[in-house]
Amino acid sequence: MLLCPARRDNKESVNVEIINTGTEILLGNVLNTHLGFLAQELFPIGLRVQRQVTVPDGDAIREALVESFARAEIVLVTGGLGPTTDDITREVTAELLGVEMEFDADVMHAIELRFARRNLAVTERVKRQAQVPRGATILPNRNGTAPGLYFPQSENRNPHLFLLPGPPRELRPMFTDSARPILQKIASSEIAVGCRSYRLAGLGESQVEHLVGEALLAIPGLELGYCARAGEVDVRCLGAADVLEKAHAVVVAKLQPYLVSDDGGSIEQTVVETLVARRAKLAVAESCTGGALANRITNVSGASKTFLAGFVTYANEVKTNALGVEPALLSEYGAVSREVAAAMAEGALKNSGADFALSTTGIAGPTGGTAEKPVGTVFIGIAFKGAPTEVEQHLFATDRETFKQLVTQTALDLLRRNL
Amino acid sequence: MLLCPARRDNKESVNVEIINTGTEILLGNVLNTHLGFLAQELFPIGLRVQRQVTVPDGDAIREALVESFARAEIVLVTGGLGPTTDDITREVTAELLGVEMEFDADVMHAIELRFARRNLAVTERVKRQAQVPRGATILPNRNGTAPGLYFPQSENRNPHLFLLPGPPRELRPMFTDSARPILQKIASSEIAVGCRSYRLAGLGESQVEHLVGEALLAIPGLELGYCARAGEVDVRCLGAADVLEKAHAVVVAKLQPYLVSDDGGSIEQTVVETLVARRAKLAVAESCTGGALANRITNVSGASKTFLAGFVTYANEVKTNALGVEPALLSEYGAVSREVAAAMAEGALKNSGADFALSTTGIAGPTGGTAEKPVGTVFIGIAFKGAPTEVEQHLFATDRETFKQLVTQTALDLLRRNL
Repeated sequence: MLLCPARRDNKESVNVEIINTGTEILLGNVLNTHLGFLAQELFPIGLRVQRQVTVPDGDAIREALVESFARAEIVLVTGGLGPTTDDITREVTAELLGVEMEFDADVMHAIELRFARRNLAVTERVKRQAQVPRGATILPNRNGTAPGLYFPQSENRNPHLFLLPGPPRELRPMFTDSARPILQKIASSEIAVGCRSYRLAGLGESQVEHLVGEALLAIPGLELGYCARAGEVDVRCLGAADVLEKAHAVVVAKLQPYLVSDDGGSIEQTVVETLVARRAKLAVAESCTGGALANRITNVSGASKTFLAGFVTYANEVKTNALGVEPALLSEYGAVSREVAAAMAEGALKNSGADFALSTTGIAGPTGGTAEKPVGTVFIGIAFKGAPTEVEQHLFATDRETFKQLVTQTALDLLRRNL
Repeated sequence: MLLCPARRDNKESVNVEIINTGTEILLGNVLNTHLGFLAQELFPIGLRVQRQVTVPDGDAIREALVESFARAEIVLVTGGLGPTTDDITREVTAELLGVEMEFDADVMHAIELRFARRNLAVTERVKRQAQVPRGATILPNRNGTAPGLYFPQSENRNPHLFLLPGPPRELRPMFTDSARPILQKIASSEIAVGCRSYRLAGLGESQVEHLVGEALLAIPGLELGYCARAGEVDVRCLGAADVLEKAHAVVVAKLQPYLVSDDGGSIEQTVVETLVARRAKLAVAESCTGGALANRITNVSGASKTFLAGFVTYANEVKTNALGVEPALLSEYGAVSREVAAAMAEGALKNSGADFALSTTGIAGPTGGTAEKPVGTVFIGIAFKGAPTEVEQHLFATDRETFKQLVTQTALDLLRRNL
């Protein structure tokens, strides 16, 4: 990661801290994915996490809250909102803020509805979750019982405080639906600047910096940030409207071919939306990515308007039966080859009636590599209705899941560039 | 998360804290895997992490060290040992401990050897890494330039302090080879405790607690934890060997039908390993899960020994062409129906030559629901060679990605129960 050093000390940003509670994180049983998720959600709205702490369930939350209250303008706490005796985040917060706990009939009603749908009895323990510190705004929980809570910044200089549930499937939609809009308002009033995130594919972070860094740094009043992930780079611009306009002109002029979205949207979203707008249909044929490519495409709501079929052809016989790949091709060139990648894409196109088809065949590892085709070798194909098939060769020597991520990213970008 | 409250205050352990430095972690760019690695390495030698903090590169490290010095007996710091101006962990530590920086000829020699092997010139910046605070023990770095450093607990009550490099491929071997033996000596007086994690499917957290909670709490010396995720629950037992044996007997007696693994392994791993051991072959036919089921299965290394094919049949025509689902069935019952789920599983079995085939067809949402079949409705089928097909109906009303997670979890558990 690289931040424009000239802007580093120019601390016009709001101080955000995250407190994660959970003994299972400190035991190494569960990876803390909250920090990554929240940081990536906060980045596009101009907020940056300055400090994160993990404490065990129970009393340690109190000390962590006291420390963060003294430093931060925004504090996000995860976990400790459940029904058990260790879940004391609500109570500790009420005590620190000096407010009473109150029974909230709406929260209770939501809990009762949830339990009724599942034919479960509401126990006394569960009812605890309807006790809410006075003055809190309820953040509804679509996927669980305990609601999130938001306490606005108060006169006696408490920070904006968000209490969020521990399970990611409860926290994530709650954050996106209810907490982020509040944070967006806080961020825009505090820093009085706009924010724009560009997502780029097919370039590394240093290449992006090389292409636009100097021109962007020359714009007075622009705060610049880069964030690199597997196969993609985000460029974030913070500044007044006229500053952002200048930055936009630079980004578009220099980076257009690599620009996936100018709102931080994912490459699969861009690809699906473009295909739907053109009424074009898509199919995929996967070997080494094992369904990961279809999975990313179908994560986009509305994918069914363009996505017809995915063929996950792990076994050679299935490549032949489902996609019509000639056995002679498999025995002559091997399953991991330019020729088979082309035949797979063409087979998927033909058998589904799609306008575009992508294919992947490679060696995800950790075993299966050879001297000629080491672990990480992959061929990615694209077939078109009425145009010659193309195949790219890459080498992604990494762990199995990162390999799938990089191959699907590269395949989606190959399609994007051809749309 | 729930911990047995009776054991919580029994604080017989040494207080260990971890300080992770790295702006890239706080930006969500890189997942913090150090905590998980270190916690799992520390646990078997009787040490537990009580607190973990992430601070940006630069001055924030000072404040974090001061805080941890006041609380902990052992402090592990990761990152900030490199050659750039932001890497100040060494200097801040020397200042806090009140010792001078000294040039270490052995460290310099190791750096020069490393650079010579790569035909690189040793710059002044790089030479900084041979400056070592007086009194530090060098922890050699097999995979990088900057050595780790260990400062023993001193009379003026500083903790045992370990400075470790940021890149995991440098930190991990260094920790195992050099830091862990020192920590083992420090911890040698501690009671040896073990840890065992059981993964369960098909039960909620409260149901698991209802079945085993009382019996487990009755075992003296056992610390108990639950952790719930979408469609699965982990039960964690901590204690001496004889205590864990008693707990194991209880878990097996009460939870056997739901037990996915007794080492925390995933359901896809259990399913793949069982299939491979039986030399049985698997295929899947997916509609609503859009490749997510094949993706989970192929995340397991060695999946190619059992997994033959996945058919992601989003469009009705593809259900007919690729799986032989009768158009009459689709028009009479609809694509989301018990009948089509059965036909999809049977088609996947037949077209791939597998022994088992799973199918999914449902409404992931957010659109596409009806009064009769609301968003979240799903039919999950399993077809066998030589036995009648089974279909289950479920309702998972949640967001699109959690829906996929719950459906694939339920499908994998349906297969597990049939193996």
